[in-house]
Amino acid sequence: MKALESSILEIGVRARAASRELAKLSSAKKSEILQAMASGLVAETDALLRANAQDVARAEGLNKAAIDRLRLTPERIAGMAKGIRQVADLKDPVGEILREWTQPSGIQITKIRTPIGVIGIIYESRPNVTSDAAVLCLKTGNAVILRGGSEAISSNLAIASALQTGGAKAGLPEHSVQLVPTTDREAVRILAQMDEFLDVIIPRGGHSLIENVVSHARMPVIKHYHGVCHVYVDKRANLDMALDIALNAKCQRPGVCNAMETLLVHREIAPAFLARVAPAFQKYPVEMRADPEAFQLLADLGYEPLGPADETSWRTEYLDLILSVRVVGSLEEAVAHMETYGSHHSDAIVTEDADVAAQFLREVDSATVYWNASTRFTDGGEFGFGAEIGISTDKLHARGPMGLEELTSYKYLIRGTGQVR
Amino acid sequence: MKALESSILEIGVRARAASRELAKLSSAKKSEILQAMASGLVAETDALLRANAQDVARAEGLNKAAIDRLRLTPERIAGMAKGIRQVADLKDPVGEILREWTQPSGIQITKIRTPIGVIGIIYESRPNVTSDAAVLCLKTGNAVILRGGSEAISSNLAIASALQTGGAKAGLPEHSVQLVPTTDREAVRILAQMDEFLDVIIPRGGHSLIENVVSHARMPVIKHYHGVCHVYVDKRANLDMALDIALNAKCQRPGVCNAMETLLVHREIAPAFLARVAPAFQKYPVEMRADPEAFQLLADLGYEPLGPADETSWRTEYLDLILSVRVVGSLEEAVAHMETYGSHHSDAIVTEDADVAAQFLREVDSATVYWNASTRFTDGGEFGFGAEIGISTDKLHARGPMGLEELTSYKYLIRGTGQVR
Repeated sequence: MKALESSILEIGVRARAASRELAKLSSAKKSEILQAMASGLVAETDALLRANAQDVARAEGLNKAAIDRLRLTPERIAGMAKGIRQVADLKDPVGEILREWTQPSGIQITKIRTPIGVIGIIYESRPNVTSDAAVLCLKTGNAVILRGGSEAISSNLAIASALQTGGAKAGLPEHSVQLVPTTDREAVRILAQMDEFLDVIIPRGGHSLIENVVSHARMPVIKHYHGVCHVYVDKRANLDMALDIALNAKCQRPGVCNAMETLLVHREIAPAFLARVAPAFQKYPVEMRADPEAFQLLADLGYEPLGPADETSWRTEYLDLILSVRVVGSLEEAVAHMETYGSHHSDAIVTEDADVAAQFLREVDSATVYWNASTRFTDGGEFGFGAEIGISTDKLHARGPMGLEELTSYKYLIRGTGQVR
Repeated sequence: MKALESSILEIGVRARAASRELAKLSSAKKSEILQAMASGLVAETDALLRANAQDVARAEGLNKAAIDRLRLTPERIAGMAKGIRQVADLKDPVGEILREWTQPSGIQITKIRTPIGVIGIIYESRPNVTSDAAVLCLKTGNAVILRGGSEAISSNLAIASALQTGGAKAGLPEHSVQLVPTTDREAVRILAQMDEFLDVIIPRGGHSLIENVVSHARMPVIKHYHGVCHVYVDKRANLDMALDIALNAKCQRPGVCNAMETLLVHREIAPAFLARVAPAFQKYPVEMRADPEAFQLLADLGYEPLGPADETSWRTEYLDLILSVRVVGSLEEAVAHMETYGSHHSDAIVTEDADVAAQFLREVDSATVYWNASTRFTDGGEFGFGAEIGISTDKLHARGPMGLEELTSYKYLIRGTGQVR
């Protein structure tokens, strides 16, 4: 325990030192380093496959889908390298002048983007996240401390090592990419309390991982939390459009955070709209959990599978072909439902009424609010960010899709000619 | 304890409800409300003075200066009201369009400033902070939960009540301004864990208050922490200018966070500069704590009061007429000193060499870095922000002086014509 603590503190001390060197690198130099990291990854393909085989051998208890997610292949390694080269070509936000002005005192103030410093990423997903997360942090001049899931520990260590070694050939400072080499859960608590060496933690994973970080963290945490997303079909909706959007938001990829979990339908068009959407959902089939009014309408249509919705349904992120359905009497009722039960991630209205849409966009307090488009567009790629480190459900520093800019801080440069107060 | 917890949770529930109403108000309406709050404060002058007399009567143990800070007078109440009217006239940042673009998919994305929601302010200073902090939060459409120091509890309650009652006459939503009506320290822990109802906590006070918040908080904390600020006098400094800046940074108001605590002097000009600055400091007198090299030079000059500096000196925020002094051999040594011992608040270089200045501005990782100006300009007023809620020593969300913009979040509005993925 004491040994674990001091070994993780040592990682922090090294990361802080690396971050100071990284902050001095030019954009061109960082791009060169990223290209070298991509080459390093490919050059180590054999070593990565050997390490990955150890993880796969240990993974007997997992289901086939989980083992497939864990497995590396030469193609997947090449894909990671290609991803790194794409990030290398993106515009570096560091150094951007955000604002510049002169005060009556004569001091000239420049607000300029800087790296954050040291970023901790705690995740429990496939090994490619090790590479994706590390390169986004490095592109923005940050040192990174990675802590991946225990099932991929050998692969993650091999990837981090290949990135650091490859990058070093082009001048990557030592210890810029470090992976915590233990699967001890206690390591997360130690990281979360190390605010002298870690400027922010980004947890990417399930509820218990996020709770473990939030309850211990002394530094800012940017959470990628629940997506309980809604589509509200207004009484003045174009029902063809509403059908397209509802189907897309629920069915195109139900396992992601920006998929719809609850459909709200205005009472006036509920019979007509449910008669349209129910058969389309039934083909998948989407299991619906409905409030009494919607339940009656759907039962009359002969819709199955169908169950009653309760308080829990409205708060549930199914991440599956299951949908909560509710009939509401007004925009206000729809907004109140979202405020009460939603997760403030992505919420949409379908309507032809511009005034109603404007009220919806103004009053719904979610990271992304939509008028006549699917909630599935909440995504760094769809926003044109070029890269995405996650989707923040927090309101400070970063909200919604997080690209490179969200991995930066800023400072003020003051130039004077001897001014005093 | 259980009763305390539920009463504070109730404050949180009410604040969240108020925040939803506040977010709907126009800028003009908010200005009207702030004017009504100013009038309400003045109208309640007698009640405020009576409440304040209770605090003053309880304050017998405090020193004269502390009692003076605690005391309200009709003039001070008028001053608070004037401050509110000034904030009412500032530009409201909420609703500002930060960026607007259209993606190839056809969706139109608008990034727009919003209120944060509910802001907690925990402070231990004079009662006018109750009014100052509340109005800045309201101007930006946020509900506020205030928790002031126990010595001013009666005054703070009276001020919060006068603001809420006065504002209500112009339409301020109920419970927009709430003060925690207990001096129980446990209340801070309960607030800090209430992340469902509080979006951010801003602690303003000493080390133990900030530590109490940071160690318990589940939501983002924006700290207003130490200011261990440096002035580095380079070998190519204009010594007249360096003298002005050093005197101003140390002596003009030594008790504030942007005052200089450590003077670093390049070896080549140390004898000449210390011979200039020492007699000027001696007049105050400034007590110097010097490294061996500076100590010898100052002792040769007959400077007193003088003591040796140690590791603790370099980390100390004196907030007094005391100064640590060190001779360094290079810019790199000066920067390394700041990185090792500083608090990343405000650091200055005095030099005529533009290249050295550029390197300093680039490499020193502090909220505000200065070339040829006093560190004392790190201030919302001097930055032209019109108002200041504090000076952040954090790197996420807000860094350096915090004005109205730093009390806002943002969201994305997406307008489509039926787009799906």
